Amino acid sequence: MPTAAPRIHAVILAGGAGERFWPASRSAIPKPFLRVVGNRTLLEATTARARRVATRSGVWVVCGAEHARAIRAATQLPPARVLVEPVRRDTAAAVALAALRIEAADPEAVMLVLPADHHIPDVGAFATDVRRAAVAAVASGALVTLGVAPTRPETGYGYIQRGDAAGPDHPGLFRVRRFVEKPDPARARRYLRQGGYLWNAGIFVWTARAILAEIARYMPELSNALESLRNAGRRLSRTALDAAYRSAPSAPIDTGVMERSRRVWTLPVSWHWSDVGTWESLAQELGVATGQSRAVAGELVFDDRGGNLVWGQTGRPVALVGIEGVAVIDAGDALLVARLDRSNDIREVVKVLKANGRSDVT
Amino acid sequence: MPTAAPRIHAVILAGGAGERFWPASRSAIPKPFLRVVGNRTLLEATTARARRVATRSGVWVVCGAEHARAIRAATQLPPARVLVEPVRRDTAAAVALAALRIEAADPEAVMLVLPADHHIPDVGAFATDVRRAAVAAVASGALVTLGVAPTRPETGYGYIQRGDAAGPDHPGLFRVRRFVEKPDPARARRYLRQGGYLWNAGIFVWTARAILAEIARYMPELSNALESLRNAGRRLSRTALDAAYRSAPSAPIDTGVMERSRRVWTLPVSWHWSDVGTWESLAQELGVATGQSRAVAGELVFDDRGGNLVWGQTGRPVALVGIEGVAVIDAGDALLVARLDRSNDIREVVKVLKANGRSDVT
Repeated sequence: MPTAAPRIHAVILAGGAGERFWPASRSAIPKPFLRVVGNRTLLEATTARARRVATRSGVWVVCGAEHARAIRAATQLPPARVLVEPVRRDTAAAVALAALRIEAADPEAVMLVLPADHHIPDVGAFATDVRRAAVAAVASGALVTLGVAPTRPETGYGYIQRGDAAGPDHPGLFRVRRFVEKPDPARARRYLRQGGYLWNAGIFVWTARAILAEIARYMPELSNALESLRNAGRRLSRTALDAAYRSAPSAPIDTGVMERSRRVWTLPVSWHWSDVGTWESLAQELGVATGQSRAVAGELVFDDRGGNLVWGQTGRPVALVGIEGVAVIDAGDALLVARLDRSNDIREVVKVLKANGRSDVT
Repeated sequence: MPTAAPRIHAVILAGGAGERFWPASRSAIPKPFLRVVGNRTLLEATTARARRVATRSGVWVVCGAEHARAIRAATQLPPARVLVEPVRRDTAAAVALAALRIEAADPEAVMLVLPADHHIPDVGAFATDVRRAAVAAVASGALVTLGVAPTRPETGYGYIQRGDAAGPDHPGLFRVRRFVEKPDPARARRYLRQGGYLWNAGIFVWTARAILAEIARYMPELSNALESLRNAGRRLSRTALDAAYRSAPSAPIDTGVMERSRRVWTLPVSWHWSDVGTWESLAQELGVATGQSRAVAGELVFDDRGGNLVWGQTGRPVALVGIEGVAVIDAGDALLVARLDRSNDIREVVKVLKANGRSDVT
């Protein structure tokens, strides 16, 4: 029996700080606001992706108060669609808040949850798979996570191990056997060789009803904290939100629900995806390789070795002599030179700067 | 028999471009104008050194037209003491021009020739040795070159091989056996081990009369070209200088006279000297070593490896992650990141930029 296309509400989670993108990213200008690939910011590209699959007025953003104004300006969303968290409470609370608001607006809605700062160039393929996941989510009540087919033994991502097929009514969907943390290189190679492992992209599709039920089951504290918002109707007072949110526990939706629920499915997808989580992953994204450098803005006027990533926010000419495998991030008021394979440690720099009260450059 | 102290005129040669100090040095702001060590520019420090030994009104500068105004401002010398070369003709012509002007002002004068952009911290020791060399130059008519006692097997300097002692009347002075080009590391180590080799610092002491005689003998073309200036008296017209200078050949005083004259002596000196010719030699000067970085201006806020030189003209904070043995030269309108041991190749960068018409940053 043919079913009507599900009505999708897309929820963009824009709470991340992106410290590893220092000094291009700051508390005030986090990673979603950066133009890291192409001419649009990651947030603009994510919003366009969300619009592609969502119903009219079905695009939402959850963000902190400090970024609300910039996000409204960048996304052009109506104020009621920008859910401003009074305090930061990690992704489970953000998802719950969005689910409650969507349920109030459209009780039968399917939710698509997507991080604000990932890179997915093929929007058409993305939309097709989101719609397939949405159909399955409506029909089964499953929590569907999109699993990206790995193309290399990446140690920077978590993995999903596929279980049994979800059944003849849901071709292409699988139960999730388990979620696994970022592996070491040997395990990452084994996952790739063995097959059946997918990158956990943090992109979820489920009905508002289903996720609220699973939150109630596995995170009752969170559920209770936000219960008062349930009957808020279409308008939500800032006072009510504030009171409810402050009492909510802080946990990621992954550990809070996804790793515990028995209704979790995955839809393996084969389009290109990157979390562009570090300068190294951005370098990879841009095709930086031995002998091959890339400049994101700025002008690389001399480079005798290659394999470097230059981020020239000021547009100044940059010359590299005898340098290889290095990120040069020229952010106007601060300068970073870092080995690309040490990209994860840039959080240390931010930590030290914050400890020294350098809010001017963090 | 006691002799009167010779009257010393000091000639500062400020014609060098200092391309290897790009991007801190530019055509418009060459190396003598940089504050590389301490609070004074190299030119200011050199002028102070010259004043220490020269007679009142006995400090001269030879420079190009493009820097004359800045040099007058920096040195506070009277206009007649700043000899502006109409075209660049290397050091032999600069020395000859200065010798002719000094001869006109004081026929018995001793000339001290010193580059504008070297670093000599102990001005007292320097002055003592210059005066000793001056006494010998007056008494003997020798061309005396100061030879710096080497402290390491440096491959970036030319060497002077000492010959026989100059004789009982001139204790401490030696004839020069030969000048040798920058050696490879093995030869540099041999020179150091063997002894009798000195660094050629390009600092000369001679009477105006003696150097003009040797120029006439070994560089007759240059001598003839400038002959018309001989009788110009105290005032030298720009037209006369222009005509004479343009016809002068271009050659260094080293190859033109010093390596050929039979009247060349050396005074070995043991004070600290550096030509601060490259970022690497500046790093050495500042005590940069494995685990030990230095920031000349700018602020090094994070540096987990060390051995780096940071030149932060803009004062911005700089963070280095996993970086060692590298120069980070942040010059406001251009940025260089270079391995210190590749410092000599920075001239290549300038060459490429000039070839591409980038006069904005060269």
